[in-house]
Amino acid sequence: MPRARDLGLAIGRFPPGPLNAITDVGQVAVGHVTLIEGDRTRTGVTAILPHPGNVFADRPRAGLSVLNGFGKFAGATQVQELGEIETPILLTNTLAVGRAVEALVRYTLAQPGNGHVTSINAVVGETNDGRLNDIRAARPTVAEMLAALANARPGPVAEGAVGAGTGTISFGLKGGIGTASRRVGDYMLGVLVQSNFGGTLRVDGRPVAGVPEADADGSIVLVIATDAPLSSRNLTRLATRSFAGLARIGSSLSNGSGDYALAFSVGPGEVLGNDACSPLFEAVIEAAEEAILNALLMAGDMEGYDARHDRPYRVAGLVL
Amino acid sequence: MPRARDLGLAIGRFPPGPLNAITDVGQVAVGHVTLIEGDRTRTGVTAILPHPGNVFADRPRAGLSVLNGFGKFAGATQVQELGEIETPILLTNTLAVGRAVEALVRYTLAQPGNGHVTSINAVVGETNDGRLNDIRAARPTVAEMLAALANARPGPVAEGAVGAGTGTISFGLKGGIGTASRRVGDYMLGVLVQSNFGGTLRVDGRPVAGVPEADADGSIVLVIATDAPLSSRNLTRLATRSFAGLARIGSSLSNGSGDYALAFSVGPGEVLGNDACSPLFEAVIEAAEEAILNALLMAGDMEGYDARHDRPYRVAGLVL
Amino acid sequence: MPRARDLGLAIGRFPPGPLNAITDVGQVAVGHVTLIEGDRTRTGVTAILPHPGNVFADRPRAGLSVLNGFGKFAGATQVQELGEIETPILLTNTLAVGRAVEALVRYTLAQPGNGHVTSINAVVGETNDGRLNDIRAARPTVAEMLAALANARPGPVAEGAVGAGTGTISFGLKGGIGTASRRVGDYMLGVLVQSNFGGTLRVDGRPVAGVPEADADGSIVLVIATDAPLSSRNLTRLATRSFAGLARIGSSLSNGSGDYALAFSVGPGEVLGNDACSPLFEAVIEAAEEAILNALLMAGDMEGYDARHDRPYRVAGLVL
Amino acid sequence: MPRARDLGLAIGRFPPGPLNAITDVGQVAVGHVTLIEGDRTRTGVTAILPHPGNVFADRPRAGLSVLNGFGKFAGATQVQELGEIETPILLTNTLAVGRAVEALVRYTLAQPGNGHVTSINAVVGETNDGRLNDIRAARPTVAEMLAALANARPGPVAEGAVGAGTGTISFGLKGGIGTASRRVGDYMLGVLVQSNFGGTLRVDGRPVAGVPEADADGSIVLVIATDAPLSSRNLTRLATRSFAGLARIGSSLSNGSGDYALAFSVGPGEVLGNDACSPLFEAVIEAAEEAILNALLMAGDMEGYDARHDRPYRVAGLVL
Repeated sequence: MPRARDLGLAIGRFPPGPLNAITDVGQVAVGHVTLIEGDRTRTGVTAILPHPGNVFADRPRAGLSVLNGFGKFAGATQVQELGEIETPILLTNTLAVGRAVEALVRYTLAQPGNGHVTSINAVVGETNDGRLNDIRAARPTVAEMLAALANARPGPVAEGAVGAGTGTISFGLKGGIGTASRRVGDYMLGVLVQSNFGGTLRVDGRPVAGVPEADADGSIVLVIATDAPLSSRNLTRLATRSFAGLARIGSSLSNGSGDYALAFSVGPGEVLGNDACSPLFEAVIEAAEEAILNALLMAGDMEGYDARHDRPYRVAGLVL
Repeated sequence: MPRARDLGLAIGRFPPGPLNAITDVGQVAVGHVTLIEGDRTRTGVTAILPHPGNVFADRPRAGLSVLNGFGKFAGATQVQELGEIETPILLTNTLAVGRAVEALVRYTLAQPGNGHVTSINAVVGETNDGRLNDIRAARPTVAEMLAALANARPGPVAEGAVGAGTGTISFGLKGGIGTASRRVGDYMLGVLVQSNFGGTLRVDGRPVAGVPEADADGSIVLVIATDAPLSSRNLTRLATRSFAGLARIGSSLSNGSGDYALAFSVGPGEVLGNDACSPLFEAVIEAAEEAILNALLMAGDMEGYDARHDRPYRVAGLVL
Repeated sequence: MPRARDLGLAIGRFPPGPLNAITDVGQVAVGHVTLIEGDRTRTGVTAILPHPGNVFADRPRAGLSVLNGFGKFAGATQVQELGEIETPILLTNTLAVGRAVEALVRYTLAQPGNGHVTSINAVVGETNDGRLNDIRAARPTVAEMLAALANARPGPVAEGAVGAGTGTISFGLKGGIGTASRRVGDYMLGVLVQSNFGGTLRVDGRPVAGVPEADADGSIVLVIATDAPLSSRNLTRLATRSFAGLARIGSSLSNGSGDYALAFSVGPGEVLGNDACSPLFEAVIEAAEEAILNALLMAGDMEGYDARHDRPYRVAGLVL
Repeated sequence: MPRARDLGLAIGRFPPGPLNAITDVGQVAVGHVTLIEGDRTRTGVTAILPHPGNVFADRPRAGLSVLNGFGKFAGATQVQELGEIETPILLTNTLAVGRAVEALVRYTLAQPGNGHVTSINAVVGETNDGRLNDIRAARPTVAEMLAALANARPGPVAEGAVGAGTGTISFGLKGGIGTASRRVGDYMLGVLVQSNFGGTLRVDGRPVAGVPEADADGSIVLVIATDAPLSSRNLTRLATRSFAGLARIGSSLSNGSGDYALAFSVGPGEVLGNDACSPLFEAVIEAAEEAILNALLMAGDMEGYDARHDRPYRVAGLVL
């Protein structure tokens, strides 16, 4: 399946990084566990590691922006209060957040150097894959969460119906994981999304004919990494701008769509001033829009189990 | 000059109200004072009256959403705390906010029935018209602010380079005041914007060739009226969604663009639940996008005075 | 051990309810699981059920206030966005939040009538008992969390070193669970705290001699129930006022003290206006202060295991 | 009249600076204009200059915390968004905020070096002196606001019924302006309050007999200066803690009490980490409590005009 740029769709004006992925930023690594089993299990977990070291000991500055807090994002208040993250980030399904928190706690307790750690703020995002997945069954397990952390690698990122995107839906089409990046002067910025929302799909601004009537509910989590040395306050502002990419691709921002953006910086050195943020603010909009488009294009068809209505359910992938 | 619908540009899927204006909602009234004098004065003030009665005595529920707080919006914290407005709304230029507050205080003190009022939360939005207007000169005066309140009328709303939009710029083109409305089931929703920001203009999703390189800074204030009986919490959520219209038309959401949305309800009766808000959330996105487009289309060319650089400055109006 | 009123300490001017406990409000129920095992396990979990029915189906309006977000409170963003809770509330230790979320998900999925539920916002508060408890061991388990929910009863509430207060410390003394209530006209208001913070203890305003030098870090969760029909906005404002009780008893509000207050209403009928809230705002300050004092007075001495420093640790109970 | 320390009342454990005033911090300066005229005018304005230079060009980092947004604080959103102030701070009465904004705009436009400035975020706090002052009359004027800025001096600060405290009331007693400071290691921290709220007065924790029944409404503005190099995020957290001093002295935090705290830093150099803030957090509580107590002790009796009820009104000063 092609990514957006393979189809000549280059969103915006900033150039992408070499992989056009969140892993273009520093040593960011991504790991998936994809669970496709029998007729009913279509779920998974995606891990984002900001750097290969001990994240609890070496904490990236971070900011969280919430457009619609109808979601179960774990770790929100501490990120906002202290302006940093102290664990990797896990994305999974709505009813698996507790197990993801448990996994991050166990992971952090077990890391070398953390023998006396007694407080851990696990960061977990989620969307609801209950239209294709038997979300009431307790998967992924804690062990599967830990496997995603262990799987994390730099380099190209698998997209579409993988990891936390295995069972997601966007615009009534198969959604999933997508990523993109942008070079902004000397800095790199990358976005990874778990895309699971509705509205009217626009491809680079143009509504796409033939998209099925979409249940607008659902959600999105956007994770943004950069090596630009932003303060936590400006990381929060950067995260806020990523929602403009969501708006441009056509989300209707319904009551039921919990929309979260977390941005972190792995950049050392003197923190950038407010004015210097504008190019990054513009670039994150582009990267977010392209990451969502990549999630759709790379997802393919999926047949699964609609846990809300207790029936089989089939969703088509986007073909342009 | 044509409005968007005169050119066949009908944004979104909900139908507009009879005037396609904020004045389609209840008895909302709008008044402008437009100041175009000599080579340097290109500014003004726009008043929005939620109803023809005593607003201090009969307070609309309200919510305020701030995408970028780089602005001087007066009355913000009380609207957010108490979930209501108690004065009409004035829009004007950045350095005139103090005079607008003073005018709303005098206006409210003088209204019949307010003889013992000793506390007034004036609501004033602004954007910076200092690229076409000698903003350092103290215009509009308090008397001119009061005249806009006295001028307010229901019915069709003058758009473009009028009132608080007299000297504004969007996408390097002449911006101004614009409005639009949407019918959502039994409810009406209207938006009025003071448009003064930058980015890459998209007309119904398509980038427009020939738009000059735009200084992205600037700002927007969106005022949203509805007769849907929303709680202040859901009015705040409604206001947040209006920014998606701003994103779709191409704002780059720069550091310097102070972006504010105020929503108020004149609807009596049982407050709507969270779920019932989704169609209104979608409609406000459409109406905001169309209101901004109307502001651009109705503005025409303008020659004025760039107060930042102390020189004459000329801006063209959008022609499609 | 005596409660504050048994010692003649009646904080404030509003009368308490019959039990002087959160269970004076409607049919609120409280359940504890207390884990004191060997030399190292000093922890537990406390469940608060807002009513005996299906909380997911019949959701109390709610508001959350965060004085210091250095904590792992689960469910925060959805409570703030939607203004309601949809599960009972669990309080436990910092590293057990994931298991508490998992327990609330299982509990809710299993309730009659919830056979098609696919989204659940679990509400979990925590403080860090790692100075008396081997917090790195994975207790309470999910089963122990579920037992606290099953244990919940109306009527008198066990206080001190029980449930989520088993291993907590306040002012260098043994802290714990405490509760108090106030009658405000026709309404009842109750507070339950998990008290685990530092500063200089003041008993009804007077500093208490002989209190050991206290590590100021730690945290508090305050849960407030009322049958006054407040909007979610005014419940948030009510929650904010409870922190004044924390201030009066002497918290130094250190960087490490994560301080959260959740308020919910079980009151039906017409929602109260802003002005009518003032007596409730005053009463919640009193009740919060007395609840914390009760937690201290009812706690007794405790010997346990300091997980931060890997050593035995002993804390005395407050005796006045 | 004696200050608190003259009576042996030393709040807390940190030592005060040499003046026990906000002017102990760097080169902070304070200026008052006090308007006591005829039977009806009891109002004024207080200016706080963070440093003697051009504040627009050399902007202190700043944070704003709002306990109760029922107030008209000007400049709130920009301080929160950009984490800095760009004008001196004016405090005045509720209906004079527009004129204070106008004065700060004129002041800033006129300063040497600001010849091309076209955007100014005026910072103005207020409380309502309408129980002793004919607040509906338009005093202070813009010229009187400017005079307070011109009057500002380092050194001892006049307290009590001066400047913005001329007509304020606290606990049914005469309130006013008060100040205090604390030395925290190498850093200095100072607080200045405009005190105008109700509740039950506690002097160093002890309720004071004989205080008249107090109308709890009213408000307070706390301005906090420090030379500790805090980030804007930690200045916001510092500001939040100052409300604990308000709680300790007995505010009932009523619906009508708009409570705002603004903190700014004039400290150069490496920004302090989160953990290093705890002593400053504790010290600001003490300084806030003592500043309010000083405002009461230094205020004396006042006879004026109750604009709410159109009658003369007399308020006694606190005598201990």
